[in-house]
Amino acid sequence: MNRFSFKNDYAEGCHANILKALVETNREQQIGYGGDQYSAMAKDMIKERFNSPEADIYFVSGGTQANLLTISSMLRPHQSVISAESGHIFTNEAGAIEATGHKVHAARSEDGKLSPEACREVLDTVTNQPHVVKPKMLYISNTTELGTHYTLEELEALSGFCKENNLYLFVDGARLGHALTVVDTDVTPEDIARLADVFYLGGTKNGALIGEAIVIANPELKEDFGFHVKQKGALLAKGRLIGIQFMELMKDNLYFDLAKSANQKAMKIKAAFEACHCSFLTDSYSNQLFPIIPNSWIEKLAEEFDFYVWKKIDEEKSAIRLITSWATPEAEVDSFIASLKRLA
Amino acid sequence: MNRFSFKNDYAEGCHANILKALVETNREQQIGYGGDQYSAMAKDMIKERFNSPEADIYFVSGGTQANLLTISSMLRPHQSVISAESGHIFTNEAGAIEATGHKVHAARSEDGKLSPEACREVLDTVTNQPHVVKPKMLYISNTTELGTHYTLEELEALSGFCKENNLYLFVDGARLGHALTVVDTDVTPEDIARLADVFYLGGTKNGALIGEAIVIANPELKEDFGFHVKQKGALLAKGRLIGIQFMELMKDNLYFDLAKSANQKAMKIKAAFEACHCSFLTDSYSNQLFPIIPNSWIEKLAEEFDFYVWKKIDEEKSAIRLITSWATPEAEVDSFIASLKRLA
Amino acid sequence: MNRFSFKNDYAEGCHANILKALVETNREQQIGYGGDQYSAMAKDMIKERFNSPEADIYFVSGGTQANLLTISSMLRPHQSVISAESGHIFTNEAGAIEATGHKVHAARSEDGKLSPEACREVLDTVTNQPHVVKPKMLYISNTTELGTHYTLEELEALSGFCKENNLYLFVDGARLGHALTVVDTDVTPEDIARLADVFYLGGTKNGALIGEAIVIANPELKEDFGFHVKQKGALLAKGRLIGIQFMELMKDNLYFDLAKSANQKAMKIKAAFEACHCSFLTDSYSNQLFPIIPNSWIEKLAEEFDFYVWKKIDEEKSAIRLITSWATPEAEVDSFIASLKRLA
Amino acid sequence: MNRFSFKNDYAEGCHANILKALVETNREQQIGYGGDQYSAMAKDMIKERFNSPEADIYFVSGGTQANLLTISSMLRPHQSVISAESGHIFTNEAGAIEATGHKVHAARSEDGKLSPEACREVLDTVTNQPHVVKPKMLYISNTTELGTHYTLEELEALSGFCKENNLYLFVDGARLGHALTVVDTDVTPEDIARLADVFYLGGTKNGALIGEAIVIANPELKEDFGFHVKQKGALLAKGRLIGIQFMELMKDNLYFDLAKSANQKAMKIKAAFEACHCSFLTDSYSNQLFPIIPNSWIEKLAEEFDFYVWKKIDEEKSAIRLITSWATPEAEVDSFIASLKRLA
Repeated sequence: MNRFSFKNDYAEGCHANILKALVETNREQQIGYGGDQYSAMAKDMIKERFNSPEADIYFVSGGTQANLLTISSMLRPHQSVISAESGHIFTNEAGAIEATGHKVHAARSEDGKLSPEACREVLDTVTNQPHVVKPKMLYISNTTELGTHYTLEELEALSGFCKENNLYLFVDGARLGHALTVVDTDVTPEDIARLADVFYLGGTKNGALIGEAIVIANPELKEDFGFHVKQKGALLAKGRLIGIQFMELMKDNLYFDLAKSANQKAMKIKAAFEACHCSFLTDSYSNQLFPIIPNSWIEKLAEEFDFYVWKKIDEEKSAIRLITSWATPEAEVDSFIASLKRLA
Repeated sequence: MNRFSFKNDYAEGCHANILKALVETNREQQIGYGGDQYSAMAKDMIKERFNSPEADIYFVSGGTQANLLTISSMLRPHQSVISAESGHIFTNEAGAIEATGHKVHAARSEDGKLSPEACREVLDTVTNQPHVVKPKMLYISNTTELGTHYTLEELEALSGFCKENNLYLFVDGARLGHALTVVDTDVTPEDIARLADVFYLGGTKNGALIGEAIVIANPELKEDFGFHVKQKGALLAKGRLIGIQFMELMKDNLYFDLAKSANQKAMKIKAAFEACHCSFLTDSYSNQLFPIIPNSWIEKLAEEFDFYVWKKIDEEKSAIRLITSWATPEAEVDSFIASLKRLA
Repeated sequence: MNRFSFKNDYAEGCHANILKALVETNREQQIGYGGDQYSAMAKDMIKERFNSPEADIYFVSGGTQANLLTISSMLRPHQSVISAESGHIFTNEAGAIEATGHKVHAARSEDGKLSPEACREVLDTVTNQPHVVKPKMLYISNTTELGTHYTLEELEALSGFCKENNLYLFVDGARLGHALTVVDTDVTPEDIARLADVFYLGGTKNGALIGEAIVIANPELKEDFGFHVKQKGALLAKGRLIGIQFMELMKDNLYFDLAKSANQKAMKIKAAFEACHCSFLTDSYSNQLFPIIPNSWIEKLAEEFDFYVWKKIDEEKSAIRLITSWATPEAEVDSFIASLKRLA
Repeated sequence: MNRFSFKNDYAEGCHANILKALVETNREQQIGYGGDQYSAMAKDMIKERFNSPEADIYFVSGGTQANLLTISSMLRPHQSVISAESGHIFTNEAGAIEATGHKVHAARSEDGKLSPEACREVLDTVTNQPHVVKPKMLYISNTTELGTHYTLEELEALSGFCKENNLYLFVDGARLGHALTVVDTDVTPEDIARLADVFYLGGTKNGALIGEAIVIANPELKEDFGFHVKQKGALLAKGRLIGIQFMELMKDNLYFDLAKSANQKAMKIKAAFEACHCSFLTDSYSNQLFPIIPNSWIEKLAEEFDFYVWKKIDEEKSAIRLITSWATPEAEVDSFIASLKRLA
């Protein structure tokens, strides 16, 4: 890989603090399967940061695993989950949710976000009981697969909709750090824990080697969750591996600082596109950008950088996807912007 | 944990070479989802070591995941798998296999090993087709959950039984390194790849932080396996994490040296028990020992060391389980032996 | 139920010939689980009628059962099925297909029929392998849930599309009799068996008490199907019950005559709506009609007849659904037409 | 089938009253999917007979379907069910329960009955939480697959065991009529409904063409059961078919009279074997007998009658299985006894 890649936020290893801690603790004997002291410390730090002293927390290795595990453990066989049509569980998990027996409804969405109105439309299609499945959960990703994030008002509205319709709200937080550190956001970690029944904060895309922390806020969903973790093959013998990572990420706000830094780099690039009078597929303030540019620019940029061509817009233009991360060097950001300016 | 633990072989972190490699490669950008160069190198090294140039290899994070993934992808819905009654998939995976829809038959076994005779007994219970499931796979662990290992003759017999009865042979190699390095074993890596349709070699219990390498030897089982890996939540975004580990473990025979070292420490302890005229629950030559000792000894030993009391034998005696690993210091082995001698 | 119902085609019992045969054979001892002589005779008659001497045939009790059984037995875990968005498996089976682990893709469709173009659009959404499911089957219902039927050209096109894309073609024939007896159809039973990999012909909606006959035409799909029938709870101890029914239905073309009669009654009603200058939601020539009429008419008609109000068209008009069957008396058809004329 | 068959109790059609009712009601229009008036009447009659006015009742077509549906709807994914090792769900349902994701534990049993002691042994194997499944249900069949039946004391003990261990008690009543009419039984229908959380009474083996009536006594298990019925393909469009049958069976105690008659015929045969100094595999008082007889007798009897050779006892003797039913003519019973006497 000679060209610098803006393809994703998991191309590098992990933050140096994590490697340091892995080295320092390496020969200690720890209890297996998540009973280690680092997992315990990390859980306490997350509970404090999200103001959720009563929450149950489980560490698993990736997002698809977190999604399938959470959804399948909380739904009965006839229940289903509603996702935006661009939601990861609907598009990019190889049928992981259906493989556990549950239908995923696709609700219309332009910008990756789920709205009460779109959810209502789904509910209106499943009235012919018992010939239909029974939606029981809303799944949202924050930030979304299209880089957008939810405002507090939007989250409150979804939470209210859930309560009215007897649904759980599940937040896929593979990029929750990024969502909570976009400029001027009015959403706090406490809000997430208060409004979601269950959510997770992702390590993989924000400085860890692997690891997502599932936080179960709703007490009625806690029972026996650990059995499901084991049953789905998600219980690591060396739970310390994820425990140590989240301990380090939670120290001194590192988790949020890394995400904020990724967002800032993206905003710098965004400003450059705006200066070039480019429009965007979605209005993102986080580390995923979808600028719409001439195909001729794409060709040129691709000589120096790696990124996805996301969507054809018309014969001349396409949207590309650029992702920054905690590990993206400022120099590469600047270099990209310089190349862009040359094209414009 | 003040007392030294002989409870398992996953209490420590990982071999120093792995940490070193993780540090050295940390800021490199690599392709995600197993497309990285380290995974490719590790796969090539495994293929060479097992003399299986045509095999397909997939890295996943743990044993239960490897088992459920392999079994569920290779069986049709009406097919089942036969395991020794002490097999991990029958006893200790929280119903992971059944959760994918497949029955696990328990075949009688005294020593953790599966025999053609015991398998035949199972087949004889499922003749009333189509009112019964159709066994299609034998699952064996090598070494077994009771520390025993298979001889070449035994493996040949099982493989022959499979061919006669149109069954696949699947070897759970969470401790395959240990099985292949017991003193005087006549089984080689090549034998495993030749006789098994699919097997995995475990990293977690032999020097890695996480990771098992699934090796698909039978060509008819290869198709689309990658989809299943993703669907079960087993596909790591940073596949490099496991790739780097197996690359290091395969270098200079490290994987087998670590296992051999664990076995040797166990044999040293075994000799001490024999010198004390103790018998054993099973005849183990690997890193798991099940000595039968007076309960009074157990109490005393437990003051200094941590281990499992495995099984009550009679009013006076019980079997305990002791596990050594690549990370067990010789000094702790010697200390344990000294304590034992004081008791005897 | 004082008002005559046009709500469905399963409101009455069964054709008199079936009751007669049940009575006559009642005290005979027959082999259970489908081994009876009547099932054998019925299968032979179906094979002959569909010119499929090599087909395997299984009787099950209902359409959802036939669908879930067929689909789940023929797909591997990572494979999915494509249905029109109005398809029964997508809308009205309580998640039966997903409960067996498989995603159902909804392809756009205006008239209930699936087209190669709409299927191509679905295929274009699942290119990011292995992060997506792998479509392996097209599911079509004929006649469709909207009363429409496929022409030979359309079926040939779908079959060709399947062959090009390595997909199975599965025909839900809950109303296959009606599809094959619409006026001027160019599709024969032989065509269905030639073009579909698997299909079923429905008894429940065409004169039987229960029963659908699954016909497996593609040899590679036959293996072990009987196990799946048992596993899904679809194997009746008294298989004779369905065997006798299909034997009677296959005698003297009764099955097709009943369906044709249902279609003719619907066409008589259709002509009456046309005479009143009504339009229709879909262009149906079978026993399901979806006329669009003023809401004031609906109110009046509902005083005398029972039927579904299917879909609101605008503030003044709605589409209703009317279904005729083998059992619908001509007198009720005439009475309905008379009422309609009074309104117009 | 020239020889009279004692192989099972589903070789004939149904009781004449049922056929009569089917004929008489045939052309009535009824609401589909179990909304018909006959289903409602039958449910009321069952509730009254079992003194369970608050129970929820669902009709399905067969025993395997009733079992898989009931178990899968009531267990969460990590929960399992305990069965006698001879239980139908463990041995003869093609993995139907596992196919819904749940492990079936086999508890030791000599006579087909489950005991608290044997269940306790199973519970003792699953203490290593969360690495094990969590038993949540006891499954018993009454009468059992070996013809035995439970006394009130046994049922009370199992129910008490369930309450102590937070388990549900599920009674497979494919032959519940026979269990409740063995000579001198102290168990009443009310007892079953009081002690079981859920049970079903079987029609298929006691005079109906198809049909089992699932009775949910425990209020916490009622919610949304209808969705599961639909999802598993068990909801008949013409629910009247089973409703009418149970209405007829519940009239004038017919259901119990038919079972009693089957039992009496078996007891007559049993007495004949006893007179010949034969022993039995199990001590049955119901319509299934397992006499142990010389192989030479088996050969002779098989010339005139059809029955299963159940189990080899030694080189000279085997146990056979004989089943009588409501439909077995007294003349055939007498003829069998005469043949037996000639041999003895």
